[in-house]
Amino acid sequence: MSKKDIEIAQAAQMLPIEEIAGKLSLDAEKLDHYGKYKAKVDFSALHNNENNNGKLVLMTAINPTPAGEGKTTTSVGLGDALQKIGKKTSLALREPSLGPVFGVKGGAAGGGYAQVIPMEDLNLHFTGDIHAIGAANNLVAAMIDNHIYHGNELNIDPRRITWRRAMDMNDRQLRSIVSGIGARSNGMPREGGFDITVASEIMAVLCLSHSLDEMKERLSQCLIAYTFNNAPVKMGDLNAQGAATAVLKDALKPNLVQTLEHTPVFIHGGPFANIAHGCNSLLATKMALKHADYVVTEAGFGADLGAEKFIDIKCRLGDVQPDAVVIVATLRALKMHGGVKKTDLEEENIDALKAGLPNLLKHIENIQTTFNLPAVVAINAFPADTQKELDILKEAIQATGSKSVQSNVWANGGKGGVELAEEVVKLCEQNTEMAFAYELTDSIETKVDKIVQSVYGGEGTEWSVTARRTARRLTKLGYDNLPICMAKTQYSLSDDAKALGRPKDFIVNVRDLSVSAGAGFIVVLTGNIMRMPGLPKTPSAEGVDVDNHGKITGLF
Amino acid sequence: MSKKDIEIAQAAQMLPIEEIAGKLSLDAEKLDHYGKYKAKVDFSALHNNENNNGKLVLMTAINPTPAGEGKTTTSVGLGDALQKIGKKTSLALREPSLGPVFGVKGGAAGGGYAQVIPMEDLNLHFTGDIHAIGAANNLVAAMIDNHIYHGNELNIDPRRITWRRAMDMNDRQLRSIVSGIGARSNGMPREGGFDITVASEIMAVLCLSHSLDEMKERLSQCLIAYTFNNAPVKMGDLNAQGAATAVLKDALKPNLVQTLEHTPVFIHGGPFANIAHGCNSLLATKMALKHADYVVTEAGFGADLGAEKFIDIKCRLGDVQPDAVVIVATLRALKMHGGVKKTDLEEENIDALKAGLPNLLKHIENIQTTFNLPAVVAINAFPADTQKELDILKEAIQATGSKSVQSNVWANGGKGGVELAEEVVKLCEQNTEMAFAYELTDSIETKVDKIVQSVYGGEGTEWSVTARRTARRLTKLGYDNLPICMAKTQYSLSDDAKALGRPKDFIVNVRDLSVSAGAGFIVVLTGNIMRMPGLPKTPSAEGVDVDNHGKITGLF
Repeated sequence: MSKKDIEIAQAAQMLPIEEIAGKLSLDAEKLDHYGKYKAKVDFSALHNNENNNGKLVLMTAINPTPAGEGKTTTSVGLGDALQKIGKKTSLALREPSLGPVFGVKGGAAGGGYAQVIPMEDLNLHFTGDIHAIGAANNLVAAMIDNHIYHGNELNIDPRRITWRRAMDMNDRQLRSIVSGIGARSNGMPREGGFDITVASEIMAVLCLSHSLDEMKERLSQCLIAYTFNNAPVKMGDLNAQGAATAVLKDALKPNLVQTLEHTPVFIHGGPFANIAHGCNSLLATKMALKHADYVVTEAGFGADLGAEKFIDIKCRLGDVQPDAVVIVATLRALKMHGGVKKTDLEEENIDALKAGLPNLLKHIENIQTTFNLPAVVAINAFPADTQKELDILKEAIQATGSKSVQSNVWANGGKGGVELAEEVVKLCEQNTEMAFAYELTDSIETKVDKIVQSVYGGEGTEWSVTARRTARRLTKLGYDNLPICMAKTQYSLSDDAKALGRPKDFIVNVRDLSVSAGAGFIVVLTGNIMRMPGLPKTPSAEGVDVDNHGKITGLF
Repeated sequence: MSKKDIEIAQAAQMLPIEEIAGKLSLDAEKLDHYGKYKAKVDFSALHNNENNNGKLVLMTAINPTPAGEGKTTTSVGLGDALQKIGKKTSLALREPSLGPVFGVKGGAAGGGYAQVIPMEDLNLHFTGDIHAIGAANNLVAAMIDNHIYHGNELNIDPRRITWRRAMDMNDRQLRSIVSGIGARSNGMPREGGFDITVASEIMAVLCLSHSLDEMKERLSQCLIAYTFNNAPVKMGDLNAQGAATAVLKDALKPNLVQTLEHTPVFIHGGPFANIAHGCNSLLATKMALKHADYVVTEAGFGADLGAEKFIDIKCRLGDVQPDAVVIVATLRALKMHGGVKKTDLEEENIDALKAGLPNLLKHIENIQTTFNLPAVVAINAFPADTQKELDILKEAIQATGSKSVQSNVWANGGKGGVELAEEVVKLCEQNTEMAFAYELTDSIETKVDKIVQSVYGGEGTEWSVTARRTARRLTKLGYDNLPICMAKTQYSLSDDAKALGRPKDFIVNVRDLSVSAGAGFIVVLTGNIMRMPGLPKTPSAEGVDVDNHGKITGLF
């Protein structure tokens, strides 16, 4: 039996974090240690090496399936491979939430021999960023209810508070609550609820801010409620942005750790990939670009959601662009897109592969055409892959004009990704000019239509009466020039989770919109989006343990 | 105008934390840095210097009044003074919760020239311990509701879940909630609520555990609910203690920082002083005793609650004892005990002083007689104190056989506490044998009676029907041999917050009991104890800010 991820991670010899920083010519003075193997990096590192501007490589994927694609594993392996072929490399990745760690998923920091370490710390609070975000979020929530309790000078309608509380836990019981009950001194009874902390707008704000001042300004713009007269109330109206920023002063600093092969990794921020943009912080990406020649980063879910938001929100806002895009696919996952059950994936199935392949082809087309970027497909190898399946896949990819490369980093670490790394280096020489899926000056409706038509390959959109009304209101409030953040199922190119492969002739139903005015995007809701997950019948928490010396087991 | 606490703190030159550790002969290898000026200390430091066993000095106070006594300020100043007169000294103190920081109180780490630094970090998450406790607490809560949702094999009665959720915030809106509403998939509707995190039993458990194994065992014993058949359900029944301990693996390590005068300070844990025992962790105290010759520590509220629990719970459980006790008093506070309003404290008022004095005298008597320990009174100096008032106070104290010393550490730092330090050193030579207020083998009722009669100076107790019934149930469950944790108003020796000075002939009303089976004590509720504070009309959060370089203002 092969070793568990946590066993591989715990067997690794880590280098002191100042040595890792040294690889990036990052002075030890810029580090705040959190133990020997983690550090926060000072903001000033953003302004170092003004002339260095590394190549940015975006890792994205086909629409995810229960078979798994190994996107983070491939990112880590590619980073290690780039380092192996002599490139000054860094990764910029998201930090994990406690919710999934104790729920179904277990720990998350790559897998096999392509992992970020210390794996246990990363999965258990890490440097406390997500707790700080929760505290800032809940301070604002407490200040809202406290304002109402003490006389409600701002005339806030308790039925229209849009700012929810947050907890870094999978806790379905808190999705919908009535609070403030039992006594006059317990507040004003009202309906509300909790989101998982990574779904807080503060996480998105942190990930899109370049400085404490910018973060404070963005926070002050966050819409928290409406008045009885239908006027928006912002965080700034409560004077909460200063304290919230103070709570976040360390959380805004990117964290530095390493891979099993000692490649430097910035791990920072991790917003939801549906109601938010799903990428690590802009600050971490930019810091990495200032100090490395190649930076591998990734975006949440498949390329329809992840890469689109990465480009249309994060790159646009931060004035960066990827030099190359890697699309991860597995034969297993493509066969699932072709209709095979998870239990039957070990068998060769050419028909299913052919039926599922168009999912990948559409993502390649999007990167090449819609976003005008060079792409390579990383075929993440699994033992049951057959040569015949591989040949068919490679041929189909070749027809698009992109290359495909097998990647075997899970089993072999950086060594298993050298060919991919070499292809990525070639792509980065092309110096193409990235395109957006829509212009900011387009109307809200036009932006959404363009995403659906050009990125998803659908016919168009159908708007509910509510959605139309909200669009009018947001336009009137001056939010119509913001980018769009699509909240859509990640499992399909369409808004129907069951429409696998490459659905066509579909309409996307726009149910409602909301504005994340501080983060700076309009969220378009196309279905019921879960902002607070639940635990499974046997949560992985039940298997987690720690011995008297602090050694953790059961984090997968 | 005198400088603000935060200005004094920010002007200080800190020494690198390894230099501070060096003063205690603590090897740098035992430290996990959190930046340059904070560190967590490895558990192995507890077993260092087996032969070193410092003197323990307990700082306690009269019953608190709105005038303030300056207990922590005096602790810090005494530590600095002991260092100044050449003693190898350390402090062991509690860590502040975010709730009070953003509520009425502002930051807390001593005051004036007797402060612990870095003050801002200490007040804003510090090393994340309290967030870790909140996460562990809420993981257990989520697992309870998740268990019920998925079939409720343990037959938990949703109306009798005793484990509440926690948040490190003053948020009255969450005191009483109905959760799990809105849809079948949102859980099982039930009443519940949130306590502030420091009121979580996990905080008390952490503060009374010597090791990860002991903490895990204590957690597994925590009572979380009753079944429909009235049987207790424990955390161990849910298999949650392993994951909860994993979440707490770093939080259990004591934190090391410094005072303005570079005296080493262990800051660790901070349980509520009413429903819990209100002292820093046993681990921090013991680690300090292993590395310093004099350790100054403190207990919450006045000596009736703080010192009593320190001795009867913490010392008994940890097999330590104070060598000397300092009782802090101010003329201002004693005049308030004598009936003067806060606005009139600047005027000399001999009658009021004489009326309030017996409060102090009772506390001296308790330390001397009930607990058989040597005591000194620290008179924390204020500008409006008059010589005549001072003379009367000193004379009254002298009559008890204890000494009194003026302390001026707020204005002068350690220099202002040298006389107090010298008296403390003398007291520590006495080698007395501490006594307890009751025996563990006493019945629950007897224990409470003994505390009321000998410590509070009351006549006896009156038990509600509920309290009697709960006492019978807890006895039947085998919890009657646990120590008692009194939850009583801190403002009076009695259970009536308005009975200042030294009330006599009073009865304490026992409303109900609950057991903290993991922490290992029975909580005796004598009134409505608030476990979740609220924010004032203008929360101090509104004044907190941070500039673009991370410099905090507005933390007082």
